[in-house]
This record gives sequence, structure tokens and C-alpha cells, in this order.
Amino acid sequence: MARLIEELRKLPGIGSKSAQRLAFHILRSDDQDADALSAAIRDVKNQLRLCSVCNNITDVDPCLYCSSPTRNQRLVCVVEEPTNIATIEKTRSWNGVFHVLHGTLSPLHGVGPEHLRTQNLIARAERADIDEVILATSPTVEGEATASWLADLLRDAARDHGLRITRIATGVPAGSDIEYADEVTMTRALEGRREM
Amino acid sequence: MARLIEELRKLPGIGSKSAQRLAFHILRSDDQDADALSAAIRDVKNQLRLCSVCNNITDVDPCLYCSSPTRNQRLVCVVEEPTNIATIEKTRSWNGVFHVLHGTLSPLHGVGPEHLRTQNLIARAERADIDEVILATSPTVEGEATASWLADLLRDAARDHGLRITRIATGVPAGSDIEYADEVTMTRALEGRREM
Repeated sequence: MARLIEELRKLPGIGSKSAQRLAFHILRSDDQDADALSAAIRDVKNQLRLCSVCNNITDVDPCLYCSSPTRNQRLVCVVEEPTNIATIEKTRSWNGVFHVLHGTLSPLHGVGPEHLRTQNLIARAERADIDEVILATSPTVEGEATASWLADLLRDAARDHGLRITRIATGVPAGSDIEYADEVTMTRALEGRREM
Repeated sequence: MARLIEELRKLPGIGSKSAQRLAFHILRSDDQDADALSAAIRDVKNQLRLCSVCNNITDVDPCLYCSSPTRNQRLVCVVEEPTNIATIEKTRSWNGVFHVLHGTLSPLHGVGPEHLRTQNLIARAERADIDEVILATSPTVEGEATASWLADLLRDAARDHGLRITRIATGVPAGSDIEYADEVTMTRALEGRREM
């Protein structure tokens, strides 16, 4: 029991009281439920891995996106983390595939170019396997720096194979009044204006 | 005294108690202060008017923006209300002029095309006095409808004089994580992507 409490306490946001409560709940629960939880925890480490094409977390390789025949495999949306895929998928307007960097450049937190997963993306671009890379990192300082750096890495492929390198739009969010837009967002919205 | 309280009560957000408090404050204040308030109220109606060029609220006609020799008078940013000019000016990146519509199309609130001030803008466009109109209405339902409608009104001038009609970018706000972007904003950010 003490061992279980100790292990639960290592989870983020779980203190000793919560760990005790969880441990007693597991003790009182069905054998089946406890086994299922135990197996799920073991399997998440054994069976989940990164897609060799796009670095998404998956239990089959290549992942469901990269092996989908109905998706445009030549249109790649680059995101920071696997969770960002859900954000793009929610729009129901995206029919391309993804590439997950697993982080952004952040010298302050010791994250350098060597920590980001870009090699398989560069390789795909150099084999002329893709037509367009959309850099969908967040418009934060780290996200912008990462997008610029990655665009530079892809320049050779862009020159040799006509790869398009694009960046998602920064601007006033849909449904919001321009009155509430901050200076930087408004500047970017004006710079990023499009023909109607 | 009762007349003053009655008049103050007509102001928005002032009930009878607040009106009494304001009236007693004015009664107790210096003659000078009371005179200054009285004169300011009179002058705001006598001296302020709309700029004949851009409909901005001004005490000189044309307004300071429309008569500025350092601004590009051929680049017009169309906004909903005079207060939106401050939002654009805050960016310190805008060196064109403005046009104020004084509202947005809103059939539910009885605001139709005849209520918006567009005639002087159309006239400027048809005289080929301007090179570009940037529609900076908010990306709300009313703002988008107004932008589309105004773009159609300006099509003739666009065809005849090469006027550019553009729309500010909708997208993820600067500094924000794409995780927090709603579906519509993310869709628009993807659609509005730009070459890097």
C-alpha cells in the first residue's frame, strides 16, 4: 500500500492526501478495474511510440494520418506538440497530414535545434515528397523563432523542388471586436491583409 | 436644482441618487469649475462635427489625419466607429488615413445600408483619389457582412482605377498559443496562410 501511495504521489498535481485517496479507491475497487488500470499504464509505455513519418504518438506505424489514402500526403502542417493536432483537426477543414516537432526552440529552457524532431521532415522535403509545409507553431516568441529557423532549414528543398513554405495567419480572432486587439496583433492584422 | 438633477438623470448609467450627488457636487464647486463644465457641454455640440472627408469626429474640417502632409492620403483604413481609429493608431505602424462608417450593417437592430456613411468614400474611390481601401471592420458577423457589402460597392472603382480592396487578417492573436484558438479562427488562420 505504501509503495502504491509513493508511486501515485509522483504524478503531477497529486499530493500525499490525493495519493492516499486514490490508493484506497483502487483497494476498494473491483479486481477487473484495478487490472485494467494497471494494464493500461503498462501498455502506454510498451505499445505507444512515435510515427516514423510525422512523429505523432501512435500505436501503429505509420500513424493513421500518414497512412490515410483520403488525406493529401503532400500537404504537411507542422505543429509543436501532438495535442496541437487535435486543434487543427477540430476545424474539420484540414485534409493534409502533420509533422510534430515535440517542442519549440527555447534557449532559456535549454531547448536547442538538436532537441527538435526535424530530420524526417527535411528528408521528406528533399525527396520532393511534399508540395507545401505550413508552419503552425504558435505566434509566441518561441513559436515564431522556431518557424523562422525551420523555414531556413527548408529553403534548399524550396529552391530545388518548388516546395512552398507558409505560415498560419496572425490577426484578430474570429468573432472578436478589433477594439480588444493588442498593438502587435493589430499590426500583424494590417500587414497580413488580403485582397477581397 | 430640480432641473439640473432631471437633466443629469438623462445621462446613461446615472440614476436619481447619482444625479442628486452630482448636482450637489456642482452646487458646492467653484464658479469657475461649473462654468467650465457648462461651456464644455455646450461646445461639444457646437464645435465638434464630422470631417467632410472621412467622417471622423473633429473640431477642424478636414480633420488632422485628412489634412496631414506626412500621411499617405491614398491609403484608407475603413473602421466602424471613431474609437477604432485609436486602436489602429496605437500600433504606430499605420501611416495612411481613415474612413469612419459610424456603424455596421445589422438588420436585427434596424441598421441598413442607408444608415452607414459611405458616400464620401465611394466618391473618393471614383475620383481615383485612393490606391487602396483596407476594410478594418471587426471579424464579427456584422463586421464581415459590412466588409463584403462595402467591397461590392467599391468594385466599379477597383475595375476602372485599379483600386485595391483588402481585408485585415483574421487569425491566432500574437503571443497566444494555438491550443486556445477556436475552430473558426484556426480555419481562418490556415486559409490565410502566407508565404515565408
